Amino acid sequence: MTAFIEGARAGDVRMIARLISQIEDGGGAAREAMRALATFAGRAHVIGITGAPGVGKSTTTSAIITALRNDGQRVAVLAVDPSSPFSGGALLGDRIRMQRHSGDSGVYIRSMASRGHLGGLAATTPQVIRVLDAAGFDVVIIETVGVGQSEVEIAETADTSIVLSAPGMGDGIQAAKAGILEIGDIFVVNKADRDGADATARELRHMVELGSWQGWKPPVVKASAVQGTGMDEVMAAIADHRAWLAASGEDRLRRLRRAREEITALVLGAVRQRLADRSDELAALADDVLSGRTDAFAAAERFD
Amino acid sequence: MTAFIEGARAGDVRMIARLISQIEDGGGAAREAMRALATFAGRAHVIGITGAPGVGKSTTTSAIITALRNDGQRVAVLAVDPSSPFSGGALLGDRIRMQRHSGDSGVYIRSMASRGHLGGLAATTPQVIRVLDAAGFDVVIIETVGVGQSEVEIAETADTSIVLSAPGMGDGIQAAKAGILEIGDIFVVNKADRDGADATARELRHMVELGSWQGWKPPVVKASAVQGTGMDEVMAAIADHRAWLAASGEDRLRRLRRAREEITALVLGAVRQRLADRSDELAALADDVLSGRTDAFAAAERFD
Repeated sequence: MTAFIEGARAGDVRMIARLISQIEDGGGAAREAMRALATFAGRAHVIGITGAPGVGKSTTTSAIITALRNDGQRVAVLAVDPSSPFSGGALLGDRIRMQRHSGDSGVYIRSMASRGHLGGLAATTPQVIRVLDAAGFDVVIIETVGVGQSEVEIAETADTSIVLSAPGMGDGIQAAKAGILEIGDIFVVNKADRDGADATARELRHMVELGSWQGWKPPVVKASAVQGTGMDEVMAAIADHRAWLAASGEDRLRRLRRAREEITALVLGAVRQRLADRSDELAALADDVLSGRTDAFAAAERFD
Repeated sequence: MTAFIEGARAGDVRMIARLISQIEDGGGAAREAMRALATFAGRAHVIGITGAPGVGKSTTTSAIITALRNDGQRVAVLAVDPSSPFSGGALLGDRIRMQRHSGDSGVYIRSMASRGHLGGLAATTPQVIRVLDAAGFDVVIIETVGVGQSEVEIAETADTSIVLSAPGMGDGIQAAKAGILEIGDIFVVNKADRDGADATARELRHMVELGSWQGWKPPVVKASAVQGTGMDEVMAAIADHRAWLAASGEDRLRRLRRAREEITALVLGAVRQRLADRSDELAALADDVLSGRTDAFAAAERFD
């Protein structure tokens, strides 16, 4: 185990990969690794990229990687894909899009399974960030698929959250409906060469104006990750936000929140484990609830 | 409290609304209601409608309500909207779309807050279904926004899950990425009058073929909820699936799963409540993790 940790700290990609797998599996090895890495304070900048399916998250991530590499920074990417019986994790399209970075030792890309470990992504994501941070990556990008509750939680672990949309896909109202407006530090309207990009940007700006922002007002940037346009503005917005985080002390608050979420996820994960260990009892109680012999509250108290 | 329950059972809409509010608030009143309603076995058919923002979920829900009403069935709709500072729950557009049913006493529509109660939607949704079931609704439709993990969990509480997509919005690959293919009992390609509808349907059918289905193979139906086309096929697919559920015994398995999820959510909710009650201690431990004085696993054990 110490070999993994030492290897990961030295930036050995195979050791990093094995350490992350152990974290995903949960159990004693993850625990030991976290104990060993506890004193590595957060140095890496964590960027979250989220948005509805089809807005071009992978392409945008790839463009951001390129910009960061041109700036000499080492970049790790965590792609949070729901484990699907169809895909078995990342799909071919993304792999192809990411392939241009595959020969670059300054880039590490990893798909994360969204199921499995009982603590869930809310527990594993901060731990994996810690590993990548200790391994010397300057930036960690977390790319989440979709816009649900658990993904909002993951986005909240980022220092800088980028919410991506595209014309005709998810306009401002749809973004508000999906609850992603409140988590965005930067809004990027991708596919800016398409009809409706200006309208989408205008609507997002209007939504931002309606919100109550303190200290940082999220900019709305138009870009085309495929054509490479607007990426300078995206990178400038990221740098601005990072500077604001440091100057305002908000970076420390976000990292405290991340630690709190990690502890909470581990506590809940332990309870889930206890429920899994007593699954026969849980099944019998579910049967009792279904047949009206008891109610769900009374059944839940049996696990107190 | 007994008055609420008796009123709800008699179909009194104000009493139903107040009972649901009490369930959302959690606490003793919800508990008492669940105890009183424990013996009302599931009779209502629960239909889940999910899909990415913008595919036309509200319009489709509205068209399904109309079809069910023409068949003489009483319908309740739970619209699961993330509570947003922008929207304050349901947005104007949906309200307008749903308004055509507002004078119909056989239709009850309710927006559910996705935050608040610590047990979360996974706990409250089955309880609210139970109330609506006891109140005599024949069908309960749960409409979820987005495609994240927690919404997949809600979709799993349905007897019949409809996954909605639209041409050019979320094609098959995007649907697979979002992890929604595995939960669909019926796939509906909405906005079928638009370019690309055939391609989207073909791609979804191809994805279905690649999956391993047991007993029920999800049909792919093209429809236009706005124009009303394809809705007969959608309703026929729902009826077919309901008949299959009953014939195969799968309906009982799904209801057992729903009860199990409800108990699990209540157990986890109680733990969240305990964490909330000790939030100062949690904040201090988060600070310890951030500064490397302890690790998250050791911190989590303090709440065992």
